[in-house]
Order: sequence, then C-alpha cells, then structure tokens
Amino acid sequence: MKNIFFTPGPSGLYFTVEQHLKEALRSNIPSISHRSKDYVKMQQETCEALQELLQLPDNFTIGFTSSATEIWDRMSENLIANYSLHFVNGDFSKKFHSAVASHGKNAEARITEAGTHHNLATVEIDKEVELIGLAQNETSTGAAMPVEDINLLRSKYPDPLLAVDAVSSLPIPEFDFHQLDSLYFSVQKSFGLPAGLGVWTFNERCIEKAEKLKSEGKYHDSYNSILKIAKMAKKHQTTCTPNVMNIYLLGKVVQDMLRKGIGQIRQEATYKSAVLYHLFESHPKLTSFVTEKKFRSQTVGVAQVQGGSEKLIEALAKKGLNIGSGYGQFKNQHIRIASFPTHSKEQIEMLVDEINQLDF
Amino acid sequence: MKNIFFTPGPSGLYFTVEQHLKEALRSNIPSISHRSKDYVKMQQETCEALQELLQLPDNFTIGFTSSATEIWDRMSENLIANYSLHFVNGDFSKKFHSAVASHGKNAEARITEAGTHHNLATVEIDKEVELIGLAQNETSTGAAMPVEDINLLRSKYPDPLLAVDAVSSLPIPEFDFHQLDSLYFSVQKSFGLPAGLGVWTFNERCIEKAEKLKSEGKYHDSYNSILKIAKMAKKHQTTCTPNVMNIYLLGKVVQDMLRKGIGQIRQEATYKSAVLYHLFESHPKLTSFVTEKKFRSQTVGVAQVQGGSEKLIEALAKKGLNIGSGYGQFKNQHIRIASFPTHSKEQIEMLVDEINQLDF
Repeated sequence: MKNIFFTPGPSGLYFTVEQHLKEALRSNIPSISHRSKDYVKMQQETCEALQELLQLPDNFTIGFTSSATEIWDRMSENLIANYSLHFVNGDFSKKFHSAVASHGKNAEARITEAGTHHNLATVEIDKEVELIGLAQNETSTGAAMPVEDINLLRSKYPDPLLAVDAVSSLPIPEFDFHQLDSLYFSVQKSFGLPAGLGVWTFNERCIEKAEKLKSEGKYHDSYNSILKIAKMAKKHQTTCTPNVMNIYLLGKVVQDMLRKGIGQIRQEATYKSAVLYHLFESHPKLTSFVTEKKFRSQTVGVAQVQGGSEKLIEALAKKGLNIGSGYGQFKNQHIRIASFPTHSKEQIEMLVDEINQLDF
Repeated sequence: MKNIFFTPGPSGLYFTVEQHLKEALRSNIPSISHRSKDYVKMQQETCEALQELLQLPDNFTIGFTSSATEIWDRMSENLIANYSLHFVNGDFSKKFHSAVASHGKNAEARITEAGTHHNLATVEIDKEVELIGLAQNETSTGAAMPVEDINLLRSKYPDPLLAVDAVSSLPIPEFDFHQLDSLYFSVQKSFGLPAGLGVWTFNERCIEKAEKLKSEGKYHDSYNSILKIAKMAKKHQTTCTPNVMNIYLLGKVVQDMLRKGIGQIRQEATYKSAVLYHLFESHPKLTSFVTEKKFRSQTVGVAQVQGGSEKLIEALAKKGLNIGSGYGQFKNQHIRIASFPTHSKEQIEMLVDEINQLDF
C-alpha cells in the first residue's frame, strides 16, 4: 500500500504534482534559463494564478525566497528600524520574534499559552511599534486566528506594518489583503509541493518603509532584499537563479485549484476539520489541544493523546498512514494531522476510522 | 526529436536524473521532514559522496544554500571585516565583488580583460586583504584558471582566505583543498540538476574568522549565516527547510559519477573540450574567445562568431540543439557551449558536425 502523509508539512504532494513533474521534464523546464522569455512567461503565469486564487490586489508584489525562514530574515533586515511586536503562541511565531531579535532590533514578544491565541480585541500596542508579526496558523499547536480578528486589529492599529504567517493555512483562510501588509507561506504545506520555496507577498507600504530605511542608511542590502525582489518581480523574474521547478509546479497546482474552485476547496476543508475535531472530542484517549473552537485550525488538527502519542503514531505508520508527532516540547504528547487540499474527504474519513479501530 | 541542452547552466539534466526523480517520488522523499532520521541519513549520504568525489579533507564543512548568489552574500556578511580583493575577468567574478561592496566593505576589483585571466605569479596583494575572491571558471567568457596557478597564489599569500568560484567547473578541476578555504558551486551546471541549490564548502579558517568577527560585534546573524550552517551541518542538517529533493538528487548523481569514475569523467572532459576548441580553430567563422590555451575552460567553450551569433544559435535550436548566447555585452557576438559530465562525447561530436554543416 502506498503511504499517505498527513504530516503537517512536508506533507503529501498535491495529487496532480507527479503528472506536472513529468510534463515539466518533457517541456525541459529544468533546462530553461531564469532570464529567458520562456521563464518570464512561466513566472508570470504562476503569479497571475496565485493572484486570482488569493484575490490579491494590484498593490501586492509576489516574491520568491528559498523558505519562509528567509522571509523572517528579510523582514527583520529591512522593514524594522527599531521596534517590532510579535504575538507569540507557539514555536513558529516565536521564531519570527527570535529572528528580529538576532538582527539586533527591539522585538517584543507578547506571549500567550500554546494552543490558544491572543484576544486581539483588547490588546494595546505602543506607538513606536513599526511591525506586528502574527502566525495566523500556528503549525506547532494548531491554533489559528480568525481573519476577522486580524481585520479588527488592523482597524484599531492601522499604522504598523502587519505581517501575517500563513505558512500552513493558505489557501484556506479568506484574507482581506486591504487589512494587512505582508503575508507569506511555504509551498510544502497546503500547496502540496516539494520543499524549497517560500512565497512572500507584500504591498507598497512595505516597499516605502524599506526605501525610507535605505535613505536613512539603515538598510541591509542583500542579494534578495525586499527592494531587489520587488524590482525583479516587476519583470516577472527573481534576483538570482531560483527553484525554477517549484515555481512552475506552484503555478500548475494553483491552476488546478482554480479549476476545482476555491469555494469547493474551502468547503471541503471545513468538512474535513469537522471530522477531525469530532474524532478528538469523541475518542476517549484524545483531546483537542485547542479548546476554544474559534481558534481551531482547519488545516492542522492537534490533539493530546492520553498516555503519549508514540504508540498511535507508530501503529498508523505500520498501516502506511503517516501523521505528525507533537512539536518541540509536545513531541511525545501530541499528534498533529494535516488536512490540506491534497487530502480528500475520504482519506480523512479513512484515517479517522483507523484511529477509532486502533488500540493505543 | 528531444532537445539537447548545451547551454552553460541550467543545462541538460544529468542523464540519470529522471530515473532518480521517479525513485524519489516512490520513496516519498518530498514528504519527509528535514528533521527526521531519514532526512539526516540522506543528507549524510549526499555529503559523503561529495567528499569522496572532490577528495575533500575532514576540515571542510559542506553547507547548502539556495544559490551561489546567496554564498557571495554569506561570505560578504561574515568573512570580511574591511578588505577583500577580487580577481575580476568577467561578469560573475564582478558580481562577487559587487556583493561585497554592497555590504559596505572595501572590495578591490583587480580587473583584467574578458577572455583572459590574471597572471597570479606576478600579482602583489596588500597585507590588509582578508579574503581573495576568484572565479576558477568564468561562465560568462569561458576563461578558466589552472589549479596550479591557484596553488601558486596561495603559496605566495597564505594569510587571506581564498574563496574559489567553481560554479560551472566542478567536478572537473582537481582542486587541492589544502590550498584554498572556501569553494562553491551551483547544481544546475556541471552536476546536471534542476536549479535551486547552492553548495558551499569551507574550512575551519573560515569558521574562525566568522567567530572572530562575531566576538568583535561585526557579524551579521542571519538564519543561514556561516556559523549556523556549520553547526547544523555537523548534525547532517540545514538551518531551515531546504530543497530536499535536490539534496537527494545531488547525492544520487554524485554516486553515479563515483561509479563511472572521476578519472573517466575528467578524461572525457579533456576530449570533449579538445573537440570543441578544434572546431573554434578550424571553422572559418569561429574564433575561440579565450586565446591563451592554458586559460581555456574544459566545461564552457566560448567562441566569437563572425557576423554575430544569433543566426547560428537559431539554426541549431531548429534542430533541437540548444547552445548559449554570449553573456552580457557579448550576447550577440558569442556562442557558449557547455560540455558538462552529462554531455557524451558523441553528443559533442554530433553538435560539432552540425555546426560544420550549417551555413551561418
């Protein structure tokens, strides 16, 4: 039996990727120069498909990096002169905070318990904060922030740049891109691609901030700095030789998603996550780690396992069903199950049936 | 007829890549976590194969980046406090110089004519120079520096770090790694892989220099800084989610090269380049751009075309034979032909026959 990966990234490949890979080889995608007309056309098609899927306004640039980790660095380097604020509720939101701090900036971590999220309706933010970082979907704990809460934060504090980590949730949440400035994801999560590509979209406010820092001599001029990315993106190119294959595959997968319909994909996500959380609520040995329903991720379900998670993970792996262990300190206590667009309703139902039948 | 790519990178895929890609999909390589045991074993195998192929001593670390361009940045950031010297003889050696300069360091460019190389026997280098950069193989012009010249430079000036660009020549030149400190390449050239991975190998002198800069507060602490790369490499891991597929494919291709034998691969490179330069010397409309024989690259042959190169490039493309145009200012004057390990003797002979038969 072929293995199925429900791990929260890298996960199973989107079900059309293998076919697109074959077509890429037939079309010599790995051999085209990233400065050629064929490449430019390809990157443009990928970006246009993404724009359509995400309903990205025209004032947003799409840039490519090697990973989301790189994007934390690029923001740390050139979008913050002094102060940033990070809503930390797990390891990934913490890592963005650490990245900014390691660049010698004053990064404040506003920490809340893992498995929950901040109450953005009541937070107070200092005037000096230049950038707010938050993980819309904390892959480490399965805590997600409703898009409405992000919009509320923005309406209260419109001045700081708002940077949203959607690494493992896009394209499921329906973001309002007029309420945020910078958003990023990795392709090996919900988009079901091989790892090695980060996608960063940012608006003109980010560009203006970077230009201001540059004029003040506070700009770190790397090969992949935001202004260079933006300049090349206008020509549908990258600053250096990119992961051409993944940019091609991303375009093809997004086109497939558009054909299926984002509405359909989001409906299925709602159904699949309901099936998962029903399991967590009904199984005697499982408890949803995120207790407050409004904070439950639709793409990464996390449960505490009575007696530890290892036995369950191993038993499922023997059946070719790979789920994730807990992250960091929760490694042996939690399971993490991805329900990404590549995971069909039937696969999630089958996984739930297997867990219900297992003795662990 | 299937296209053959003799472009100097990206080029044709190594002839076993397609088969390894299929095996990677069968083995779920795109779905494994870069923190898993399976991944660690895979990265270790790739690095051990590379160590064997390049005869890399134990004091060299192998690190992975997104591109060679990134490596220029990583060296600029943390191996130079003030002064670097760059032997510039084409666009790629110039780009390393520009990268260091853009980081606000004093980067001296020692410029010689394109198509030739510096006489390293007679150069004089200031004591304050901390790092010397040179392109062993200038992909833009086809000018290559004999390894003996690099060793000579080192014996005269053992103190500065010596950083060698072998982007489009490895694994052909037989470097003596006791005579240099930092060496890097991109996988989409001679190794015949899809683009999106840079390989950087450096010794303990580089690590010590970075540590010294760190202790002096002159260190740029990025997510992929040299000290973080070195720390993770010890555990056969990377600092962030890497291009897992390419690290896997690199290992497989290097293992194939080891099975074939590096001696055999180098002999074939000598033969293929002799065939190419014989064409350049004998054809009435072609002239080798690199006139001095000792400076002629074995992997990238560059010729001036009387009356311009476009007609020839187009005529060959119609036959499914893709060669490179000139680089930068030489775009319409030159052809560039790769003879990488994936290009068989028969393919190079066939290409030469076709060029001889064409009217251009």
